[in-house]
Amino acid sequence: MSRYLIKKYKALEPYIPGEQPQDMRYVKLNTNESPFPPSPAVVKALSAAEVKKLRLYSDPEARALTRAIADYYGISEAQVLCGNGSDEILAFIYTAFSDKENGMIYPEISYGFYPVFSALIGEPPCSVPLKEDYTVDVDEYLGRGKHVVIANPNAPTGICLSLTDIERLAEKNAGRLVIVDEAYIDFGGESAIPLLKKYENLIVVQTFSKSRSLAGARLGFCAASEEIIADLKKIKYSFNPYNVNRLTALAGKAAIEDTEYFGKCVAEIIRVREFTVEELKKLGFTVLPSKANFIFAGHADKDGKRLYEELKARGVLVRYFDKERLRGFVRITIGSKKDMKTLIQTVKEGMDNPR
Amino acid sequence: MSRYLIKKYKALEPYIPGEQPQDMRYVKLNTNESPFPPSPAVVKALSAAEVKKLRLYSDPEARALTRAIADYYGISEAQVLCGNGSDEILAFIYTAFSDKENGMIYPEISYGFYPVFSALIGEPPCSVPLKEDYTVDVDEYLGRGKHVVIANPNAPTGICLSLTDIERLAEKNAGRLVIVDEAYIDFGGESAIPLLKKYENLIVVQTFSKSRSLAGARLGFCAASEEIIADLKKIKYSFNPYNVNRLTALAGKAAIEDTEYFGKCVAEIIRVREFTVEELKKLGFTVLPSKANFIFAGHADKDGKRLYEELKARGVLVRYFDKERLRGFVRITIGSKKDMKTLIQTVKEGMDNPR
Repeated sequence: MSRYLIKKYKALEPYIPGEQPQDMRYVKLNTNESPFPPSPAVVKALSAAEVKKLRLYSDPEARALTRAIADYYGISEAQVLCGNGSDEILAFIYTAFSDKENGMIYPEISYGFYPVFSALIGEPPCSVPLKEDYTVDVDEYLGRGKHVVIANPNAPTGICLSLTDIERLAEKNAGRLVIVDEAYIDFGGESAIPLLKKYENLIVVQTFSKSRSLAGARLGFCAASEEIIADLKKIKYSFNPYNVNRLTALAGKAAIEDTEYFGKCVAEIIRVREFTVEELKKLGFTVLPSKANFIFAGHADKDGKRLYEELKARGVLVRYFDKERLRGFVRITIGSKKDMKTLIQTVKEGMDNPR
Repeated sequence: MSRYLIKKYKALEPYIPGEQPQDMRYVKLNTNESPFPPSPAVVKALSAAEVKKLRLYSDPEARALTRAIADYYGISEAQVLCGNGSDEILAFIYTAFSDKENGMIYPEISYGFYPVFSALIGEPPCSVPLKEDYTVDVDEYLGRGKHVVIANPNAPTGICLSLTDIERLAEKNAGRLVIVDEAYIDFGGESAIPLLKKYENLIVVQTFSKSRSLAGARLGFCAASEEIIADLKKIKYSFNPYNVNRLTALAGKAAIEDTEYFGKCVAEIIRVREFTVEELKKLGFTVLPSKANFIFAGHADKDGKRLYEELKARGVLVRYFDKERLRGFVRITIGSKKDMKTLIQTVKEGMDNPR
């Protein structure tokens, strides 16, 4: 730490991303990436001619991309803001709408970034425990006088709320924002974007990192009322106006327009997820009901850390969380069918050869 | 504006980027882009195989790129932080080190973003007028008890301080930070990076947008003491851990390693700048002494707005600033020799056919 860091950040504990080994020697099932490459239309869009145009700035409004997203969801362009990953979008939302007097409330077990953003803003962290069965207790978020942040499906559980529940959150929190982080919505959940027509206090956040195979391109967006988007643009233009680069904007547009490829990839991931769940259950695992591209699985005979270590030693990387109520589990990304067969095989080997 | 925007941002006036017309019908000399495409090594690095890998997250540490930058400048990797453009780097710097009690001081005429960052942070804006000849009055920045931000060369004047002046700023502001924004340093100035050995209060910010032809890739970095970089990483990991995308990291590495191409492009831009200055002076223009890839030029017969409009009507886009002491000038990016001949020709036409 330097002598210059301002006081309020001295105790700040930043987010710790999952391991990103730079060699390729692991079956990498730890950061919820897609096993499929981006759409062939993306590869085509990022031509040498476009690379040469990198000498020019990107469009700060990312208009072509924004239009494609708006068209896809049947909303207006002024209801969409794109960012350098959904993390940046969430950071803009926290900056614009949250302070000591206007805090956020979120599940105690959820995306690890929510409390970090709270700490950055300087608002007191405020989380609500999950129910015994790891579901979100919607009643606990009604009329608390705070903005609500819900990952739907939730992470790392994979459990999804119904649209009726999301609607209840919006309706019973009039005058407060309800931010629905739909990073994993395409794998079986139902997006709240159609509810924007009815609720002006709703913000839906999505990412191109998972279902659209563009984690490395850094692209996220949010959809909300035009007024909310205008506020967020004010922050963006005061922080980083050219936040979406040229190639990412092209990649995102090509990806969202290729609905056929998207549909095929998502369907396959869901199929492989169900296969994996079934196989793990056969091996005596408890698996929470997931609508995401990952599953949260635990075994009575060994804790999550042990599972994580055994798998890593055998070349399969999953994610383990050293946190209360999570220590019994590992989070396993759904990779290709081949990857998941390797996982199952590796788990079996670990069972047969206890250390 | 929505009802949710927190109070302190209600009066926030964001930065307004230069026009980015999406058609290509202008000779575009308004946003200081390079007339040259990125290095051929960049085009080669962004292969279809790399585009397919976009399904994977980028390295949050951007290690290969960071190493290449550190090697280029002969400093350690722990002294470098890369960002999504130097705007993001500046935003992290303001966030980490500045608040009401630790304000920034900068020239009244400089990069328009500095007061915007101040407003975002909530510190009172504090700027110092330029001297009569549009140079920075270094004495005015010594021992003021504030962090100092200096664009060197300055924008939109193009005037550069000597390394001796920068050293004076660092020496006479012990205990306060001196942030040198070297966006345009490669066009004739001398970088302050070697001074890092001597001054722990120095931060040097650079961008790949200008001299390395990567404006559309969004890549900037700063170099400073390891302690300062550690503080900035704390902010980055609390705001946007994966801020540099995969392709940009590859592009940046390829660009900084191709020193030959870089040298050729920069030399040509300097040559064309000197040609343009000479031609404009022949036409009776006043041109401030520029060490940047742009010049700031004015004519006694017409103000900047009129020049801007006349040129735009004839297909040449330059930048005009509606601000005291700047209204007599336009800022003209140095494009290709052909572009600049078109500019000169267009200026002449405007002179010969006054409206």
